[in-house]
Amino acid sequence: MFEALETGKFLSDKEFERRGAPLRQQLLKTQFELAARDLPVIVVVAGVDGAGKGRLVHRLNVWMDPRGIETNALWMHSDEEESRPYFWRFWRKLPPRGEIGVFLGSWYTRALRTALDKQPDSEWRAHYLKQVNDFERMLIDDGYRIVKLWLHVGRETQRQQLTEEAPQKQQNPRVGADDKLWWKAYPKVLQVAQDIILQTDTGGAPWHLLEAEDRNYREVAAGEALLQAMRDHLQRPGVDRRSSGTVDPTPVPADARQPRVLDTVDCTASLSKDKYRKKLNKYQARLQDLSWRAHRERRSFIAVFEGWDAAGKGSAIRRVTGAIDPRLYHLVQYAAPTDEERAHHYLWRFWRNIERDGRATLFDRSWYGRVLVERVEELASPGEWQRAYNEINLFEEQLVEHGVVLAKFWIHITPEEQLRRFHEREQTPHKQYKITPEDWRNRDKWHDYERAVEDMVAHTSTRHAPWTLVAGNDKRHARIQILKTLCKALDAAL
Amino acid sequence: MFEALETGKFLSDKEFERRGAPLRQQLLKTQFELAARDLPVIVVVAGVDGAGKGRLVHRLNVWMDPRGIETNALWMHSDEEESRPYFWRFWRKLPPRGEIGVFLGSWYTRALRTALDKQPDSEWRAHYLKQVNDFERMLIDDGYRIVKLWLHVGRETQRQQLTEEAPQKQQNPRVGADDKLWWKAYPKVLQVAQDIILQTDTGGAPWHLLEAEDRNYREVAAGEALLQAMRDHLQRPGVDRRSSGTVDPTPVPADARQPRVLDTVDCTASLSKDKYRKKLNKYQARLQDLSWRAHRERRSFIAVFEGWDAAGKGSAIRRVTGAIDPRLYHLVQYAAPTDEERAHHYLWRFWRNIERDGRATLFDRSWYGRVLVERVEELASPGEWQRAYNEINLFEEQLVEHGVVLAKFWIHITPEEQLRRFHEREQTPHKQYKITPEDWRNRDKWHDYERAVEDMVAHTSTRHAPWTLVAGNDKRHARIQILKTLCKALDAAL
Repeated sequence: MFEALETGKFLSDKEFERRGAPLRQQLLKTQFELAARDLPVIVVVAGVDGAGKGRLVHRLNVWMDPRGIETNALWMHSDEEESRPYFWRFWRKLPPRGEIGVFLGSWYTRALRTALDKQPDSEWRAHYLKQVNDFERMLIDDGYRIVKLWLHVGRETQRQQLTEEAPQKQQNPRVGADDKLWWKAYPKVLQVAQDIILQTDTGGAPWHLLEAEDRNYREVAAGEALLQAMRDHLQRPGVDRRSSGTVDPTPVPADARQPRVLDTVDCTASLSKDKYRKKLNKYQARLQDLSWRAHRERRSFIAVFEGWDAAGKGSAIRRVTGAIDPRLYHLVQYAAPTDEERAHHYLWRFWRNIERDGRATLFDRSWYGRVLVERVEELASPGEWQRAYNEINLFEEQLVEHGVVLAKFWIHITPEEQLRRFHEREQTPHKQYKITPEDWRNRDKWHDYERAVEDMVAHTSTRHAPWTLVAGNDKRHARIQILKTLCKALDAAL
Repeated sequence: MFEALETGKFLSDKEFERRGAPLRQQLLKTQFELAARDLPVIVVVAGVDGAGKGRLVHRLNVWMDPRGIETNALWMHSDEEESRPYFWRFWRKLPPRGEIGVFLGSWYTRALRTALDKQPDSEWRAHYLKQVNDFERMLIDDGYRIVKLWLHVGRETQRQQLTEEAPQKQQNPRVGADDKLWWKAYPKVLQVAQDIILQTDTGGAPWHLLEAEDRNYREVAAGEALLQAMRDHLQRPGVDRRSSGTVDPTPVPADARQPRVLDTVDCTASLSKDKYRKKLNKYQARLQDLSWRAHRERRSFIAVFEGWDAAGKGSAIRRVTGAIDPRLYHLVQYAAPTDEERAHHYLWRFWRNIERDGRATLFDRSWYGRVLVERVEELASPGEWQRAYNEINLFEEQLVEHGVVLAKFWIHITPEEQLRRFHEREQTPHKQYKITPEDWRNRDKWHDYERAVEDMVAHTSTRHAPWTLVAGNDKRHARIQILKTLCKALDAAL
């Protein structure tokens, strides 16, 4: 999850100006439109300490009209609050219709704090997060829009932030008294954070996961997420449209090329033919053993293959199927849905192909189509693909709970390598069928896909079902990486 | 909860004919309209054994076009199903858009079965019911309407049903093998059932709780609930309205006077002046002690007073406040909401008045207005008051979890007694201000209010926060019943 939020995104001051100015204007305009229509918005600013949450809240107050914003910094609790049911403190701070309530320190703080407990009570947390979901659902049903921003920084940045700010804090010893605790517990905090995000990343109130190392970047990214959500809110069905005209369609300036999680993949990785032979034999033999063992123990496994066009999915899958007895696996390939499939929930066509215990299912493209091609090609609405992260996590949770071993591969190649392969396909008679005009069209949207892959990894790479980003420029390396990962996953589970 | 479902409702065969015929016609018509617009519906038929679930499903197939209905009786599980994640069996049975899927034996069966376990694992059940809610939410977001019918019969009826059907069952020993188990566990089954209903009675997929002793009644009541839900589905925002015209507005014939939960209140109960004096002194003294003790132990208590106009709420409350030190309680009276209150969620104006630990809050009218006056006067939409049951239960759960002692009173009087009191008010100068034209108008809707009270008790009388139905024709009796109940609740909690 968080690996996609430590890629080094930043904006120069000049770029910040270029994008901040129109953003500010449009935020303000949208704020007034929401006010005119009596539509309330709640902004939750959450994340690890030292991620600049306070500064972001300040920025939002600068960018918008503070008369319509109420900022609630709930970091110390009065005895008035302590002596009433916990949510009382939030109920009394809810913004009225037409206004914006910003919560710095929210109903998520209490859940995150459990990371500091000696023995975090995960049953209690599950119960509490259910109350959080119920609370948000109630507000959404009542016409509120809840925008949840999660700001993430790496451990080192957190340390720096907390140290740099230390002098100010000495003026008030109560502020930051916990800093050291938080920093020490950082790995556990991330685990709890992932748990919280997964359990509360609902269709009605999805999380926006933001990389927060760079102040310029995080503020623009947060502002843009907020603007988009506020605009969606104006469009929601059932909202009174009589007043004040239509939604401003002006797009905000495009996101400049930013470092992406895919940039962390080492595309120079390669393997000599010789070494490849040896490793291929070794891992195929191991996979064969393991798949029989899984069969005997009635455990099933599922491998998901996604990746760029021409990344080598097909040939990698063949190396996997080559190692497994045909009686033990089922390979399913997904293109456009059939009529019958279209008449059901989009997950239906994947559920129907789950093999029984003791067998493997290999997915050549998968349910991730919803947040990749369907998102980029606008075959799914923003609401549909945004809530799909949660739907997918719930689906995979059920698989894993049942005992399925799940591995997910994104085979990554560079655009240059893709171009080389496209040309090669065009020039090789028996490969020409593999290259279509659609491949070239998809290539034009490389940037959009990169962004979609990044969000996908951020939202769905979980402890239970992590993504493996495969370095695919060298096909031999890619195949071995996949076989090895599969063997390791099976080995750990059996 | 279930006390409101054991009142003896029934329909004669003639009445069944009179109401069944138009109902059938309209169900069929609505089914075709849903099909024309590709809108899918899921009907869950749940409840205790022996409640006639199978017969109801048969009836629905007779009333509607079985070509558009798929009935899934999931009572035996194949090894195909057992060897996949649990929800796989439901996913593969989901109806495509435009069709109706009836589930006899559904995702609720597994949760209810835990009542037969020696040590029911409530943590597991909470986790499982979260998956149930997530599953339903996913389908609702995708355009499904889920109609959940809970059929209830009392223990004696269950025994008869299971005995009468025994001869048929001998032909197949696997059917009914569990009957005895279920019947023996009946009280525990009801506890688990309440737990299930509370946790899954969501705004998107609310439960319809039906009294099922009488076959005619339960089938008409279920048919009417289904018809209403299907019509609502045609109206939902965002649904394509191009095809097939508007929703049929023909109302189904009115519900004939049926026994109600309020009929179970013994309105002849009374108390002599002498006994009243003694008991009043006794319980007021006890309440005074208990309220101080609660204060010392930092426990708060909340009493909710609802009831018919002229039922004697005011004078009963005065007997309560007369017993408590004014420093220890706050009495809040609710009429129409203020502008500021209207600009928030309807629960906001109650949350704001919750007193702190160690103090009492007395609510003269309360959050139940949502499902009483606002429902009957159509100040809240059906969606709003239907989801309010769940919102109220969640709210009260938080109060009780925090340690609040909660008591809820509905003061019941007969319509004749109300009439007598209205006339008395008109004729007594110092009481004239108490009677307004609105009281007379409300009186005309007695029947609607009765129904609303019944649904309210069915949905919100829980183990943690039960309703007390107060016999109010004799004011002395009512006051003592209230004081006694309050003392008992405090005594048990402190």
